[in-house]
Amino acid sequence: MRKLFIIGVGAGDPDYITVQAVKALNAVDVFFVIDKGEEKDDLVALRKEICRRHIQNPTYRIVEARDPERDRTAAAYTSAVEDWYDKRALIFERMIAEELGEEGCGGFLVWGDPTLYDSTIRIVERIKARGKVAFDYEVIPGISSVQALVAKHRLPINRVGESIHVTTGRKLAEGLPPGIANVVVMLDSQNAYRGVDPAAEIYWGAYIGTPNEILISGKVADVAETITATRAEARERHGWIMDTYLLRFPQK
Amino acid sequence: MRKLFIIGVGAGDPDYITVQAVKALNAVDVFFVIDKGEEKDDLVALRKEICRRHIQNPTYRIVEARDPERDRTAAAYTSAVEDWYDKRALIFERMIAEELGEEGCGGFLVWGDPTLYDSTIRIVERIKARGKVAFDYEVIPGISSVQALVAKHRLPINRVGESIHVTTGRKLAEGLPPGIANVVVMLDSQNAYRGVDPAAEIYWGAYIGTPNEILISGKVADVAETITATRAEARERHGWIMDTYLLRFPQK
Repeated sequence: MRKLFIIGVGAGDPDYITVQAVKALNAVDVFFVIDKGEEKDDLVALRKEICRRHIQNPTYRIVEARDPERDRTAAAYTSAVEDWYDKRALIFERMIAEELGEEGCGGFLVWGDPTLYDSTIRIVERIKARGKVAFDYEVIPGISSVQALVAKHRLPINRVGESIHVTTGRKLAEGLPPGIANVVVMLDSQNAYRGVDPAAEIYWGAYIGTPNEILISGKVADVAETITATRAEARERHGWIMDTYLLRFPQK
Repeated sequence: MRKLFIIGVGAGDPDYITVQAVKALNAVDVFFVIDKGEEKDDLVALRKEICRRHIQNPTYRIVEARDPERDRTAAAYTSAVEDWYDKRALIFERMIAEELGEEGCGGFLVWGDPTLYDSTIRIVERIKARGKVAFDYEVIPGISSVQALVAKHRLPINRVGESIHVTTGRKLAEGLPPGIANVVVMLDSQNAYRGVDPAAEIYWGAYIGTPNEILISGKVADVAETITATRAEARERHGWIMDTYLLRFPQK
């Protein structure tokens, strides 16, 4: 039976890769790559560097496909995403059927961790549910951008006995549930940290683990403007940005 | 200046270790180990296996100390923990000063990820704040038990657009904030999942990544009793248990 690996390669630093992921990379015959368009040269170079550094016997192939269009104007966010998943599932399904022999091994490389705000598992589950192509698959965890962020800030995510909340910029802007002490924010394109309690501490980072890494921390009141300006400038310079942050609210 | 590494070695499987952690292991002259008493032979063996497998030039030393007593009967949980941190900081400080030369490199091995429900960073920060012994330190992220759990269940932690909450058994028993869709529970010795909405899905795992791994999933109403019995039986058999779970509540 065909085997697929969904491989978390870590966020940024090629050394974030695990020994388990290296073993999986070396078992893969064909890597399936979706060209996201938005994904910039730095990331493509980083992926190549990971393969170059960690694959011993470079007989693998890379098969690329173009990402389907996603309707970002749709009123219903979730159904637009679902529709896009279905399109992606069809593309992946065809790639697996056409490019992988009955005993072949395919791989998807995922930045960070495949279980955290990534769609690859959902799409592979859809293909499995359709039942047109038979395969087994395995998920290989990777160091997420959240872990890289707090490791670089040398910071436990939570204070003693506290919970941790992980959310998106969109949901932060809508307002947090009451009593949240620590919140990690991902995918924030709208600078939602500017709307929170100015007494909160923010630990922000961009391009973490890469040579372009930027870290800023302090009270939101003191550093929010610096972060906004730094983000805008960095995005302009690099053509893309990958950032995340932890907010820690004053203890009651 | 002395250098310390706080190294996340991953949760369970020795292959969860990252290339970055392997490099740090190989830079360390002295590993500092706190004998927690509760830590059982399996875990000690796993740590030895990690060192044996990944350290090329075994000239390192291991220095062990006995963990200070922690007052588990204290009414104020947080102040008892703080007091125990202070005691641990004194022990670590003495070990660093006595065992590490001015240019020496020390290492702390941490299960899973050092930023998630682990006290090592806090204790090292305390020693730094005391200012009696000079050192620089670095935090190396590791695959946490949360990531190992969901990778084994082949499950994204969140559904599309949703937030994730990470908490303890103690806090789950006290009640969640409203609107929480996905909650990861760590350190639950009281089977707090038995008190949640029975329509929730639970994805539970113990000894993940080890030969003793157990995975159970299903509706809380259907599997809660099985999990409780399995936990009790496994803890009895192995003398200890390391487990965690994800609860996913019905979508509103």
